[in-house]
This record gives sequence, C-alpha cells and structure tokens, in this order.
Amino acid sequence: MQQFKAVRQALAAKQLDALLLPRSDAYLNEDLAPADERLRWLTGFTGSQGLAVLTRHRAALLVDGRYHEQAEQECGGVLEVLGDGDDALFAWLASAFPHGGVIGCDATLHSAAELARWQARARALRLELHALASNPLDACWLQRPSAPASPVVPQSLAWAGQGAADKLAQLTGRLRASGCCALWLPAPDMLAWLLNVRGQDIAIAPLPFSSGLLHCDGTLDWFIDEQRLQLPWDWLPPSVAIHPPEAAQQLWRLLAARECRKIWVDPALSTAASVKQLREAGCELHEAAHPLPLLRACKQPAELAGCREAHRLDGLALCRFLYQFDQQRASFLGQSELFVAAELEGHRQRSADYRGASFDTIAATGANGAMPHYLPKPGEAARLSRGQLLLIDSGGQYPQGTTDVTRVLPCGTPTARQRFLYTLVLRAHIALASSRFPRGTGGMTLDTIARQVMWREGLDYDHGTGHGVGSYLQVHEGPQRIARHASATPLQPGMVTSIEPGVYLPGELGIRIENLYEVVACAERPGYLEFRVLTLAPLEPTLIDRKALNAAELAWLQAYHVQVYQRLAADLEPEVASWLARQTGAAQSSAQR
Amino acid sequence: MQQFKAVRQALAAKQLDALLLPRSDAYLNEDLAPADERLRWLTGFTGSQGLAVLTRHRAALLVDGRYHEQAEQECGGVLEVLGDGDDALFAWLASAFPHGGVIGCDATLHSAAELARWQARARALRLELHALASNPLDACWLQRPSAPASPVVPQSLAWAGQGAADKLAQLTGRLRASGCCALWLPAPDMLAWLLNVRGQDIAIAPLPFSSGLLHCDGTLDWFIDEQRLQLPWDWLPPSVAIHPPEAAQQLWRLLAARECRKIWVDPALSTAASVKQLREAGCELHEAAHPLPLLRACKQPAELAGCREAHRLDGLALCRFLYQFDQQRASFLGQSELFVAAELEGHRQRSADYRGASFDTIAATGANGAMPHYLPKPGEAARLSRGQLLLIDSGGQYPQGTTDVTRVLPCGTPTARQRFLYTLVLRAHIALASSRFPRGTGGMTLDTIARQVMWREGLDYDHGTGHGVGSYLQVHEGPQRIARHASATPLQPGMVTSIEPGVYLPGELGIRIENLYEVVACAERPGYLEFRVLTLAPLEPTLIDRKALNAAELAWLQAYHVQVYQRLAADLEPEVASWLARQTGAAQSSAQR
Repeated sequence: MQQFKAVRQALAAKQLDALLLPRSDAYLNEDLAPADERLRWLTGFTGSQGLAVLTRHRAALLVDGRYHEQAEQECGGVLEVLGDGDDALFAWLASAFPHGGVIGCDATLHSAAELARWQARARALRLELHALASNPLDACWLQRPSAPASPVVPQSLAWAGQGAADKLAQLTGRLRASGCCALWLPAPDMLAWLLNVRGQDIAIAPLPFSSGLLHCDGTLDWFIDEQRLQLPWDWLPPSVAIHPPEAAQQLWRLLAARECRKIWVDPALSTAASVKQLREAGCELHEAAHPLPLLRACKQPAELAGCREAHRLDGLALCRFLYQFDQQRASFLGQSELFVAAELEGHRQRSADYRGASFDTIAATGANGAMPHYLPKPGEAARLSRGQLLLIDSGGQYPQGTTDVTRVLPCGTPTARQRFLYTLVLRAHIALASSRFPRGTGGMTLDTIARQVMWREGLDYDHGTGHGVGSYLQVHEGPQRIARHASATPLQPGMVTSIEPGVYLPGELGIRIENLYEVVACAERPGYLEFRVLTLAPLEPTLIDRKALNAAELAWLQAYHVQVYQRLAADLEPEVASWLARQTGAAQSSAQR
Repeated sequence: MQQFKAVRQALAAKQLDALLLPRSDAYLNEDLAPADERLRWLTGFTGSQGLAVLTRHRAALLVDGRYHEQAEQECGGVLEVLGDGDDALFAWLASAFPHGGVIGCDATLHSAAELARWQARARALRLELHALASNPLDACWLQRPSAPASPVVPQSLAWAGQGAADKLAQLTGRLRASGCCALWLPAPDMLAWLLNVRGQDIAIAPLPFSSGLLHCDGTLDWFIDEQRLQLPWDWLPPSVAIHPPEAAQQLWRLLAARECRKIWVDPALSTAASVKQLREAGCELHEAAHPLPLLRACKQPAELAGCREAHRLDGLALCRFLYQFDQQRASFLGQSELFVAAELEGHRQRSADYRGASFDTIAATGANGAMPHYLPKPGEAARLSRGQLLLIDSGGQYPQGTTDVTRVLPCGTPTARQRFLYTLVLRAHIALASSRFPRGTGGMTLDTIARQVMWREGLDYDHGTGHGVGSYLQVHEGPQRIARHASATPLQPGMVTSIEPGVYLPGELGIRIENLYEVVACAERPGYLEFRVLTLAPLEPTLIDRKALNAAELAWLQAYHVQVYQRLAADLEPEVASWLARQTGAAQSSAQR
C-alpha cells in the first residue's frame, strides 16, 4: 500500500516504531468531515469506528463487533482485523513489540482519559506512548480535502424552546456549584445546543466546528471564525465573546487574564491535547463528567413537540416509500441497495423541512444485513433478489428534530425462519417499549429487558439496545444509553432514546427493528417512567407470526399501528392511506369500535 | 433503658462520645451465637441486620428496607429508626455531632473495608472513628451467654465430593499464582468447606468457629481448640497444623517464622482487627477478593446430587405440611404463626437426615407478611384469620445440602386482588426461572428479568432477587448474587441460587415465591446457561389466575408441577400423593399422555 509506505517513512523520520490512528477528529466527533477521514485514507476502512496500528512491518485494525465482517471485506488482506478494546490492543502491541518500543499518538485525536489509560498500560509492557502535537500522516496525505467552514445559522426558538441566555445561566449555575472558575466546552454539539446555532461542517449533523470556555461570571469565550456567523445581531447574549479558533490553542492567555484557579474538564470528552494545554495554563483541573449533556438530554416541551413533528414528516416519507416498495416489489428485485436508499431519500426530500440524512442510510439486503452498520457503496452494493430480507436503517434531520428508524422488508414471500426471527426481534422490541420502570433506573438495567427475549432462543446482538438522540443535532447523543456496559445514567422524563434490538446471522440475514421513544412519567403509577413512541411507520405484517405473540404483545402492536394510521393517514395520498389502513389493521379496528 | 445507661457510662469512662454497634461477630457471620447478640441485648431489635448508634443523649438504629417496619415495632419508641447505608449513617452523625466528636467502633465487628471507608468519611465531618480492640458494651452485659464450642465432626466425602487435600491444593494454586506468600482465611464457613468439617456453634448453620492461614507451600494453620475435634485420625491432611484460637491474635509469630513478605487478605470479609494485625506483622497486604468463595460456589457433582436429595427430603416434609394445611384449614384458623412453624418443623423432623432449620422460619400471616423478614415471637405472634394470606419462608439443613423455600397459602377463599398479586409474583419468578443467558452474565443483569414483570404494575420489592446457597453450610453464600447492585459475579454452571421475587403491601399482605435452582449449561444452545429447579413443592392453585398466564408461563408451571409429583409421589402416603396429584394437575396430564 502506497499510504503505508509514506507514513512508515514519516514514522522513521520521527524515530517512532509505530503510529496509533483512531477514527476521530480534533473534537472527538463520531462523524467526520472529509478532511478528517485519516483512517479511511490510510486503510480503506469505511466504518464509523476503528483504530489502526501501523508499525514498520505490521498493520492491524481494531473494530467493534458491528464492523468485524465489514473490516475483513474492506481491508482484510492488508491489515490484521481484530476485535476492539484495550485488552485486544495491548495483546497485539505486546506481540508486535516484545522488547518495547516508542509508539506515536496524535494527542488531538484521543480523549485525555483514553490516552492516560493507555499510557499506564503501555508502561507495563515497556512501551512508550508518545503524545504528538500533530499527526505524521498529514504530511503524507497529498490531496487532503480542505477543512470545513460552513455558515453558522440560528436554530429557531420555536424548536429550541429555551434561549441561549437561559441555557448559559443554567450551565453557569452548575459551574458555580462545583466551585470551579471555568468549564471547558470541547465539542461543537455543546456550543450548537448552548447558543441555539447550527452549521454544516459535517454531512449528517448540523454542527459548526467550534469550542468554548465558560466562566463562572457567566461569560463565554467562543472559539469560531466570526466571518462564518450569519446570525441576527441580537442572537447571541452579550456575555458571549467571539475569538478566532486559533485562540483555543492559547487558552492560557484567557485564563491568566482572569486569574482562573480551577477548571472543570471532562477527560472523556476532551482531547488529550486540550487537557494538556489547560494543565499547562497552571490551573488545577476538576476532572468530572461534563454537566452539559444531561441538561441537554432532558428536553424542553418545545423540543419534544418538534421531535414529534419531525417524526410525523419522516413517517409520511417512510410510508410512501413502504407503499411504493410493497406495490412495486417485482420492479425492486434486481435493483441495487443504493437505488433503494435513493428512492427513500427522494420521498424524504418531498418535505420542505428536510435538511438531509442524519446518518448514511444502511440499505442491506440478504447477507449484507448481518453487518449491523453495513453501507452500500457504488460498484459494490448488492442487488435485491427474491427471498431475501432488506434491512433499511435511516434517519432525517429536520429543524424540528432528528429521526432514526430501522425497518426490514421481505423481497417475496417470507420463509418460516424469517418470520420466526422477525417476530422474535419484534417481541424483544415490544418487551422494552412497553416496559415501566422506577425513576433512577439506568440503561444497563433496561438493556436486559429487550435482550432476555433473544437469549431465550440462544440469540444475542453485539451492539447496544438504545442511544440518546439530539434535537436537530447528532443522532447519537449522551449521556443516557441502553446497553450492557457503562450505562448507569438513569433515564429521565424528556429524554429521547432509540430501542433497536436485532439478530444477525452471518452470511444469511440481519433483522433490526428500531423506533425512537421519549421517556415520560407513567400517569397511572407515580414514581414510574415509561416510553412514548415517536417513530411512525408500520411494521411488516407478512413477517409477523401473530400466533407467537401473547395478548399483551398483540395489544401493543395494535395500539402502535392505530397510532401510526391516525397520525399519518390524513396527510397521505388516498391510495397510500388505504394501503396503510390495510397494513396496520387500523381501518378494521376502527370499524370494530 | 437500663442497657443504654450502662453503656453510656462505659463510653464516658473511655471519653467516647458515641458507640457504633453493628449486628456482627468476630467472624463477620450473618448468623450469630447468643454470646454475640450484642445489638439485640442493647436495643431489643431481633432482625438479622442492623447498626445502632448510641450517643450520650440520642440513639438510632439503621436497618435495610426489609426491617424498617419491624424495627419501628420493636424499638421505635426508644431509638430513631433510619434506613441503612453510608449516606444515612453520616447524615445522622453530622446532625448529632455538628461540632465533631470521637466515636468508638469495635474493630472485631467491622470489616476492614467498611471501617476504612467510614473513617475517611468521618474525617470530612470532623469526626474521629476510633477503632477499639474490645467492646465497651461487653463489661455491661452481665448475663452474657458463654461462647460456643461445639464438637467438630467430618462432612462425608459422599456429599462433599472432594477431599480436603484436593481443595487445599486447588486453593494453594490460586495463592501461588497471585505471587503472595500466604492467604488469610477469616471465616468459619471457609474452613468448614476447605477441611470438610462441620460444627454447631450457631443454631442454623453447621459452623465451627475458627479461622486459618494458608501458606504458599500448601500448609494450613488452623486456629481452633483441638479438644473440639471429633474427626477420624486421618481426616485432616498432614499439611494442616492446629493452633489454639488465641494464636490467631498473634499471627506475627507464625508469619515471622516463615519470612512471609506479602499476604492476600480480602478486606471486605476480614475484620478490621485481623487486618490491622496482619499489617503490624510487617507484611505487604495484597487486598483483593478472596479466591475461596468462587471455588466453593461452583459445586462438585456429588454436592449437587446431595443438594437434589436434600430437596427431595425437604419436599416430602413440605408436601405433608401443605396437605395438612389444605385439609385442616378450618382448624388452622385461630392458631398462631408459631404453631404453623412448629407443625412444619414437625414434618421436617420426620426425616432422619434433618439437622435443623437453615434459618429461623418466617411464618407471617396477613399484614405481618409485608415485613419480608418478620419472625413470629412468643406472646406477639399473630393468629391466622380467614381471608388472610400466610407466608412461610423456611429451610432445612441436611448433610446432603441446605434448602430455602417460600410458599404463600390462603386462609380461606382468595380475593381477586390476592390472586392478581400472587400470579404477578409467580410470573416474575417464572420469567427468571425459565430464562436463558450467555455465559458471563452477572446477577445484576439477571435481576431485571424478574423485577421488570413487577415494574409493569408499578410494584417492586426492596430486597435482592436471589442469593447463593451453601452445601450443608450457610443459606446465604457468595460470591454470586442476583440483585440490583454490586452483583457483577457471572453465574456459572454448578452454582446454586434462589429466585425469590415478592410484593409487600404494608398493613395488608406479603407474597414471595422462592425456589432454589442450580445453574446448568443449556444443552440446546451452546454458550448459554439456564436454571434447573431444586425445590420440590407445589404452588397454590387457588391463588393462580391461569388466564393471566401466557402459554409459555403455563407450560413452565405444568412442567414444574409434573416434576414435583414425579419426584415425590412414590414416597408420600397414598392420601398425600392423591392430594399432590390434584394440586399439581399431574394425574390429569399423565393420563393425557
């Protein structure tokens, strides 16, 4: 590989034995601008998570369970593909460097927490993890795209529900209570929420790259190119001071002027480079979980109303697509997965409010569905063939909110096995979606409610059961998470989460059923919470074995379908509405009343 | 209170402002000998868990959720009854000592981990937690019973399945792998298992009070009065050296002679006094979870066979009692809870193998059932009256194994509400009992499977869902535990656990359904585990609303009842066997085949 050769030369010049390269950027974003796709440039791997290790003679790629099959396909020949996690990384490093070595890490691409943890482990193996201020790869990347600088526009208060001055006051209150002088805001999504602004520096989330520093007197230093701002003159509160992005590399100037003694920094969300800088400014660091994500996660009534409206718009598009697929199934056969994704995108684009996908659409037919985060690519996408299941995981960005939904469709008459597995995943979904739980219950506890249904059949899925979702922000947003590990944050009213259990049989099929839900207080049971559905799209009747559902499951399914019909039918074309009535059994159950 | 006055004088003489008194003994046993019932002597509280704080002018009792109602009844007038936990303790201490103070703690009654944690928290409140080598209360307790010294007898290899030499070798292997020179065995149950011996120093578990020190050459110092041993001459491996119990207070002598450098000690299972001693012996301490409980928890085939046999014997006694109660229900009405417990005990005593109860029988009728660990007492026990539910939680010790079972019986025709709640608890029980889960799954994850069924109705229970059970040892045995918190130990094949969800409505009723299960590999699903039932006793048909059970739940119930009938009927009197056939529907389902 040409890239390996160039980077190896750069490493030799710096007397490094290896380079660790995560898929990350200077804001630790999950989604990257083209200019930050270093891992893809180096390895060809297109997944959204991965870590490459390039030594003088070997190369490895560590990916999580979702991406193992995909990584093998994309770069199995030239890299060793391994599972992820610290244990896997250090086992490989120990085998590659039995006598020790010096390994470079770009400190702008790793969180401070990760780098500190790795450095401690490396020492035990006589390895030195050398934190680099810049990336040796960058000089080798000749046709690197330029960094993004999209316009920064206001996010209407009609959907944000709370002005920036209010949010700043609330966050400053948390800061004061901590006894710290300042709070480091490392990530663009934090500033976007706090100041009610949006941008388009990456394709799939409306983020303007920037960072900030909040002081305990309520003033905010915002690091962004002022030229980019397209905001009404009075949009930003007077306590916001704008600094060029470069000033974020000289924080000591701002901190020294204010005699800041103690600064609150979240080492899991801040790059090692930024934490190093703050430490060198002479401040004591208060290392703790960042207070902003939890404030943001408990959404305002206006945000939730927006979220419901976004799901109504998205539901109309989905229904039209599902109707089209159902009616023209024969003509879809032989088409590629990319065609499917484009057709769905076309329906979404009919809405004037649609601002683009909230992530790259996963349209995966047959065995491709077994790769939970497979993305079809030109020239490689599979074509639909009779008997397969087609998995479509997609979402939209609307000023009102962000959506994320997965449906599975049969390309022909489903087999008994397909129906069994789909119904099982549906039962796992319903188990959690219909659950109630006491306030204070964390996502780790809730994860079991869905997963245990799969376990009974000896099946499982190697990903979380649910993630938080932003309000016209990122489709993955913490702090809440429904997963087996490290998800102790209790769910609270106003939070939005996905529920998305699945089953993946390599070489055969993948099934995932995903809706978004808002967490609400349970009216009947004080002290208990439950889920209220946001996503509006029918489930596939031909894949549901109704005999395998118990009465409670059937009741949930019917209530959901009635709601889908009632919320959408009036705005659908008559033939689509009639089809929806049939798919959901809504017409029938309405008639029965 | 006379006791308060005496102890307050003793505190004043030692210039202490207060005394912390847990329910504990020098081995941190859960069950105490009469000589160790200091908390009961001081406060009158008879529960199995509690912590008193006695100051010059105030007195408080901290108990967990199980015991709140009971503590209020037994000593609510003279002590402030509080919830348990460090937060509650230190909030109370902060209010009692706003200007600081010196508080005595008997270092022989607290684990080293607990005392260290509390001392750190106390410092922040300007309190000094003073570790005392002896208890100021002891001099005040005039008619204190004498310490137990029961005979130490062999536990047959037929039920232990593994000789002491083998177990010593296995444990020494773990010790060597740790790089330590010695391992401190703080608790009688550890020595009882390791050396295949039993005693009767406490009423409800066959334990001989003793402790031990294992060295990496495989020799074991056992601290016990040699006079007590009634063992065959070759029962103990030659590597076991017997020392008088007092030698355990002079461990430095033994350690110095061997030039021990590093000793493995579990600070959660060892008293603060013993850890202080080990530290003062000049050894480095390796503080880590003790390796013995996990070795013991994964039981030998002979232990599991014994456990099944113990449950068969116990099941016969239970069935005879349940038959008697069902047939003579009218004559049970008006009898006291103690009569009920005595009748059940009488049936157990018909077995020549029965060695006594594995814990004090909880027979609780009506509102008493709402106290999960209520114990009837002479003069205070309630009498059964029509319309109540009677909860009976009991267990037996047999050389073959230890049992623990809870059944709920109606005193008359059950109400719809009683049937609804019983059926709900049954469904929670079945949900977990019929579950499958991948190897590596911890008890915290499993807890949700039972609890979520209750949550759907806005109900919960303030205790764990399951605990490990010893083999003719203690009825509560770690390290595994099925509970909401701090139970990450994965369940493994050969472990025995209870499943015991419940519902408690104060002032009204309590329902708990408890069986023991062994964890087994799932034959159909490689990599998955499931539960195989041990407890054999029918569930109450008149309390089950079969229409509220789905097909899978009905199938579990029927299979369980068929098994109860098939395992027990041949050894029951004909009239009891016929009754059992009716109760379980076994006759009917056998006939259908």
